[in-house]
Amino acid sequence: MKNILDRNQNKAEEVRSLLRRRNVMMVNIISSPGAGKTTLLERTCEALSARMGIGVIEGDVTTDRDAQRLKKYNIPIVAINTEGGCHLDSHSIYRALENFDLDSIRLLFVENVGNLICPSQFDLGEAFKLAVVSTAEGDDKPAKYPMLFSGARAVILNKTDILPYTNFSMDAFLSDMNVINPRIKIFMTSAVHGEGIREWLEWLGQQLEAYNAG
Amino acid sequence: MKNILDRNQNKAEEVRSLLRRRNVMMVNIISSPGAGKTTLLERTCEALSARMGIGVIEGDVTTDRDAQRLKKYNIPIVAINTEGGCHLDSHSIYRALENFDLDSIRLLFVENVGNLICPSQFDLGEAFKLAVVSTAEGDDKPAKYPMLFSGARAVILNKTDILPYTNFSMDAFLSDMNVINPRIKIFMTSAVHGEGIREWLEWLGQQLEAYNAG
Repeated sequence: MKNILDRNQNKAEEVRSLLRRRNVMMVNIISSPGAGKTTLLERTCEALSARMGIGVIEGDVTTDRDAQRLKKYNIPIVAINTEGGCHLDSHSIYRALENFDLDSIRLLFVENVGNLICPSQFDLGEAFKLAVVSTAEGDDKPAKYPMLFSGARAVILNKTDILPYTNFSMDAFLSDMNVINPRIKIFMTSAVHGEGIREWLEWLGQQLEAYNAG
Repeated sequence: MKNILDRNQNKAEEVRSLLRRRNVMMVNIISSPGAGKTTLLERTCEALSARMGIGVIEGDVTTDRDAQRLKKYNIPIVAINTEGGCHLDSHSIYRALENFDLDSIRLLFVENVGNLICPSQFDLGEAFKLAVVSTAEGDDKPAKYPMLFSGARAVILNKTDILPYTNFSMDAFLSDMNVINPRIKIFMTSAVHGEGIREWLEWLGQQLEAYNAG
């Protein structure tokens, strides 16, 4: 296992340097199955794809359903089918990059396989990790899966529209989050209905500016 | 990987024979994080723990929060902390069994780590797998994670109480399910509110009878 992680880390650094040279900011999006990663990408592509070059790498265990959902935005998409594998790794990202025209992309999203555990352990060479968690999953996810939440730059708490119908405690969530990663940026969104998306996009724009200046 | 799976399979057969000899039916419960496995176990223990010997093995990545939630039922619970591992394996189950008085248990639940992928690949020696999926996760989970749903004897579609507030399509879910595993038994429950729990318990009782007769 250590050997696999070391090899992954080396390749991730190679990906990171390559993207740095080409001024492409890569965001590694990680969540449970069904937390709303693809819907978040739909809202994000809707808002930004006319203004800047966006690319997406879609990781899935078997199907290409998520990639199909994003085709309407006419952006370059590479689907990686892990054939049972529970996470993407930096080697598959490196190969996927060959299918993009990096000069025409400023922002590259990776939708990782739906899983809170394994994807947190594999650096892909991203600029930062984005955690997505749905209110329906319960407030205890940061405490139970700390590796993702301690390593992410931001967390999107999605499906706020169904919050009134759940037993989710915002206090418990925020207080656990504050112990695990006090500096994490927290957004509350309903990706289906659009709430909170403007704040997420503004912050994303700031990250892109900082990346390009850095 | 093949070597790991082979070793796991051998130990799983050993666990299965041992439990068969002792007349203990083990159920391996698998779901995404936050689908409602622990709440389902709360409802199940509430209904059955006064009538028969129940034990629980709680798999978690880091905390013992789920084990804590079940303590009020005064049943034997063994918590397995995988320390970052994304699934339980048959070796950890075999060791956990040493901590139970198997003569006093008829039904042993394993709450696997919250993950739709890796736990599906590791036989624990269970009598059958139970998949749990929440309506909030979306109707596409069987199609996207077929290994779990094709290998499970039953699936519990949980959180039906929030169904009206989601874009979950029951037709799509049932039609995909029918392609992947036409013989799977499907329950619709709200474990928080109690709907559908009676049907689940009745069926569970039938499985136990058949197991004891077999």
